[in-house]
Amino acid sequence: MPDQLISVTGHLCNDYILSIAEYPKLGTSCRVLDRRNYYGGGAANIAVGIAKLGGSSELIAAVGRDYPGSSYERHLKEIGVATRLFATDSQNCSTAFMVNDCDGNQITYFEWGAGELFGTAVAPALSFVHMATGDAAFNVRIAEQAEFATFDPGQDVKYYEADHLESLFASIDILICNNFEVEIMCEKLGWTESDLIAAVPTAILTKGKDGSVLHRNGDAIAIPACPVTLVDPTGAGDAYRAGLLTAYRKGFALPVCCKIGAVTSSFAVEKVGTQTNLPDWTEMEQRYAEHFGTLKKNE
Amino acid sequence: MPDQLISVTGHLCNDYILSIAEYPKLGTSCRVLDRRNYYGGGAANIAVGIAKLGGSSELIAAVGRDYPGSSYERHLKEIGVATRLFATDSQNCSTAFMVNDCDGNQITYFEWGAGELFGTAVAPALSFVHMATGDAAFNVRIAEQAEFATFDPGQDVKYYEADHLESLFASIDILICNNFEVEIMCEKLGWTESDLIAAVPTAILTKGKDGSVLHRNGDAIAIPACPVTLVDPTGAGDAYRAGLLTAYRKGFALPVCCKIGAVTSSFAVEKVGTQTNLPDWTEMEQRYAEHFGTLKKNE
Repeated sequence: MPDQLISVTGHLCNDYILSIAEYPKLGTSCRVLDRRNYYGGGAANIAVGIAKLGGSSELIAAVGRDYPGSSYERHLKEIGVATRLFATDSQNCSTAFMVNDCDGNQITYFEWGAGELFGTAVAPALSFVHMATGDAAFNVRIAEQAEFATFDPGQDVKYYEADHLESLFASIDILICNNFEVEIMCEKLGWTESDLIAAVPTAILTKGKDGSVLHRNGDAIAIPACPVTLVDPTGAGDAYRAGLLTAYRKGFALPVCCKIGAVTSSFAVEKVGTQTNLPDWTEMEQRYAEHFGTLKKNE
Repeated sequence: MPDQLISVTGHLCNDYILSIAEYPKLGTSCRVLDRRNYYGGGAANIAVGIAKLGGSSELIAAVGRDYPGSSYERHLKEIGVATRLFATDSQNCSTAFMVNDCDGNQITYFEWGAGELFGTAVAPALSFVHMATGDAAFNVRIAEQAEFATFDPGQDVKYYEADHLESLFASIDILICNNFEVEIMCEKLGWTESDLIAAVPTAILTKGKDGSVLHRNGDAIAIPACPVTLVDPTGAGDAYRAGLLTAYRKGFALPVCCKIGAVTSSFAVEKVGTQTNLPDWTEMEQRYAEHFGTLKKNE
């Protein structure tokens, strides 16, 4: 049903995780003991999560010369994510090279790459859009035109200025963020957490294993997390948003949407990678029933 | 013509060259200013060079889980290189991540990856084979069964033991190596350069911009290099071998083959990358005529 389309704007990224014994000195080389490649980028993770749950998602992202014919392109097609892409031949896709040594240290080489296109890209008018971590000014242009907009600042929160945030908060319907992002945004705006919550119609604050809190009309509803064996927290937030948005678009009440987000997220953390263990609707529904009782549109 | 097939054994490798301002401290990240991906691996470079020159080449290499459906696979198909591959799902293709900073420093993260398969791979019996840089024991098994074999130790020369080298020299028809490799091999064997040259029917010693020397039956014939504007020396040796082998398989006399190698090599150094500026036979023939006079099978 095209009227249920969820557009998601932000990053598509290739994540390379390399394991080495120790970092090489200048002018030398070292052996890579293991390397894993993952499909990443917050917006892509969310769009994939929605599609896996049976929702209709469209990814609006920037891609580089290494995208056409790539396995990432085939992956999105296979999962059924529609795409509206800004493409360039002069850059690669955004790519993160994370290098871990045996002592638990990490260094990251981050290639912004095609992500630069957001700076000049024309923002389309959208019916229902989630703005994931991405370019601040582009997201402002998206939010101004959107009929219904949700927003998470994600890891790019540090690149948002106070006027970006104020402009976004004036346009969006739901803000989704974690404690760390709340802190940074409050600091930039000179606000308290209560000011932030009061600035938007709905605010959902995620707190990792402590669940999430839905703030609406002055009420705060605590949503517990689903207790599972945590293997890798990467992608937990994106899976939460995928569950929440899919459910919201299907007409579920917001507190139920948050629980569906929590259940979806619990799958993501059970395996390494962000798009590797996302549930379909039936799998989500089964685990939902175990933790929250039979799934109903309202409760 | 299948009877003119040239098999090439050794590495297929993905080369990633990253440029950064300065190396990140532990626990931090830095921006990648530019990244270029190149098709590499000595054996793959040579097989591609032969195919570009109109020869018939077959690449015998190890590949990982990232090979099927990759652009490298399409690249080899498009150029017309036949492949006989050892494949694994538990490793990636051999991959080199070279990270250059603004002060001209380089560090390399090298992933041997699928290259490990050579250790247990069954070596096929071949009519005409070039052994490029690769696993020492595997190359010994190849050389023992080959009807006609040529060998270059390349960057893996440090992994060859004296008995590997002695066994290879007893089986091969042509040795091709540079000054650095001669030094390492002589040290391992306790030999002089003359001993090395006397141990094989034909030895071709390449000397970069100073050309190459063909040693055969006690004679030494100097072959000048083609003077061109050098942009990137990477791949020069592989292009030389591609030209030499293609010409030899077509029945050209060895001194002419060496000149064809020199001409082919001169194209490779004019552009960055190893497989990026290889000539077809006509282009090679034109430049040959400019430097060495009209191309003839004997001279």
